[in-house]
Amino acid sequence: MKRKPAAYARAGVDVDLGNSLKDSLPALVRKTHGPRVLGGIGGFGGLFRAAFPGMKDPVLVASMDGVGTKLKIAVLAGRHATVGEDLVNHCVNDIAVMGARPLFFLDYIGAGKLDPAVFTGVVAGLARACRNAGCALLGGETAQMPGLYHGKDYDLVGCIVGVAGRADILDGSRVRAGDALVALPSSGLHTNGYTLARKVLLGKLKLGVHDRCPGLRGTVAEELLRVHRNYEPALRSVPRRALHAAAHITGGGLPDNLPRALPEGCRAVIVRRSLRVPALFRLIAEAGNVREEEMFRVFNMGVGMVLVVAARDAAKVAESLRGRIIGRVETGPRGVDFV
Amino acid sequence: MKRKPAAYARAGVDVDLGNSLKDSLPALVRKTHGPRVLGGIGGFGGLFRAAFPGMKDPVLVASMDGVGTKLKIAVLAGRHATVGEDLVNHCVNDIAVMGARPLFFLDYIGAGKLDPAVFTGVVAGLARACRNAGCALLGGETAQMPGLYHGKDYDLVGCIVGVAGRADILDGSRVRAGDALVALPSSGLHTNGYTLARKVLLGKLKLGVHDRCPGLRGTVAEELLRVHRNYEPALRSVPRRALHAAAHITGGGLPDNLPRALPEGCRAVIVRRSLRVPALFRLIAEAGNVREEEMFRVFNMGVGMVLVVAARDAAKVAESLRGRIIGRVETGPRGVDFV
Repeated sequence: MKRKPAAYARAGVDVDLGNSLKDSLPALVRKTHGPRVLGGIGGFGGLFRAAFPGMKDPVLVASMDGVGTKLKIAVLAGRHATVGEDLVNHCVNDIAVMGARPLFFLDYIGAGKLDPAVFTGVVAGLARACRNAGCALLGGETAQMPGLYHGKDYDLVGCIVGVAGRADILDGSRVRAGDALVALPSSGLHTNGYTLARKVLLGKLKLGVHDRCPGLRGTVAEELLRVHRNYEPALRSVPRRALHAAAHITGGGLPDNLPRALPEGCRAVIVRRSLRVPALFRLIAEAGNVREEEMFRVFNMGVGMVLVVAARDAAKVAESLRGRIIGRVETGPRGVDFV
Repeated sequence: MKRKPAAYARAGVDVDLGNSLKDSLPALVRKTHGPRVLGGIGGFGGLFRAAFPGMKDPVLVASMDGVGTKLKIAVLAGRHATVGEDLVNHCVNDIAVMGARPLFFLDYIGAGKLDPAVFTGVVAGLARACRNAGCALLGGETAQMPGLYHGKDYDLVGCIVGVAGRADILDGSRVRAGDALVALPSSGLHTNGYTLARKVLLGKLKLGVHDRCPGLRGTVAEELLRVHRNYEPALRSVPRRALHAAAHITGGGLPDNLPRALPEGCRAVIVRRSLRVPALFRLIAEAGNVREEEMFRVFNMGVGMVLVVAARDAAKVAESLRGRIIGRVETGPRGVDFV
């Protein structure tokens, strides 16, 4: 039986191309594997030893996410080296705010037609971020779906699994009225709000991705492709007795995400003037005539992570992490107030 | 701060719609949760206790996959109730062939615009299959990405994590020359070959999804949307001493997937005339003028799962699982021969 899927290739799916790409992966992927990863690459599933020595009552913490239409900027700019990092870091942060450290990550790339250079760039970014996060790139799937994805478009999805001792899980139960809110700066839009950002910058302002962003240092591509920060090392550096909760500020912004870290009966009060909204967000708001309350729901507005910290530790934590105290927790219905 | 993301909605992303859909999920999802799932729904990650009492050296087995362009048929037919089952069962099978039982599953739905009925149908299917598989639907992400997904198109991705005792992992090491190959029947195309099937049935034969498939009982939609079988209960019913390996027959067909279950130095020899190729595959081959060797690489050809079984147990296993002995393992370079 010779391997020449002629009719299938004509229908738009090149099995041999898919296989040859898969052959270039092992070296990249293996660099992310520690001794807990068993077996080779190419099995039906990835294997990871579930031994957590010294951890009492280990709990797996899992999250699934995508990169959103930041991918459209990557495609327009022809720069695919960092979207994999965006995805891994996003996922790492989602479980870090629950107190977990990452164990392994799996990816999915859906595309109309696989472009080897794009594919290799994306996977290299995934592998780089996994190594930096101490996380094994345990598996992945690449699907060629002509008719669903058009032109150079692709989607990129990730799933992360981490672990935390049950007593160390940040579930909001330690949060008390009087705790301080420490904001850690974002590096840019991270992975949220790109549909609106594209509409304003590319649509309304008619900028090309290689044009300079008005009033900013970089081009549109540079400003919009800045890598989503990994906050896990920052969170880990805070003593457990000081860290009461944490919120990853993604889609929905501060108003939607901060309450997810709070228990019932606790309210976050943010002092609006304590926030330093970066120029990119101000540009989008002004050029797009977007009201501030909406800006705060669509974008992170310069805050990528909020730590809920015991009041007496707040100044020290903020200083050591180059963060900023932006408010505090008060008694009240769960939610966020801007004052 | 009032929640009315006017400009974002105009740009095609309706945050409130997304949130209201998320509100309808908890009841569906909770039905899949056992006592090992901790915490509520809506956290940044799902929590699953990593206690495996009585299991020596537990190993997590993880896999990520999609449904492929079977989704296009679901969209054309307006039937979204079963693609979630397809995805979960596909993932369950991928880790079952490594000897693992499922623990939890996470999903991703990417769409241009969220249609509540579609979304609810898909998630209901995911939840139903998770319950049937004894697997918690632990988390998920729904991304509205106008400009990337067009019209009613959406993509559906799943990640599964299961567990197996290290000594029970099926890694091919138990396979011996002389073992029998027991094929378990597929229910249809499962989730592979849809790009070619659509090209032939909808393109070349100009059939509508509600037209009867020539020579078959059902309409095109009925024949093409038959649910991907979950073989995990079948695998579990085979005594461990009898089951030496298993291969899930997905993209790449028997020639690509069967070798993944074999060790170096072992070759699968399939007796071609022992296979009963269902009428749907014969129709595609004839109408599309697709050569048999390609048919076998694109489609499962009626075989959804192959068990590699000790020769003396083969007849009994085949009978109890309504399978069929289709060949045996011989010494030789890893691969598949059709004789």
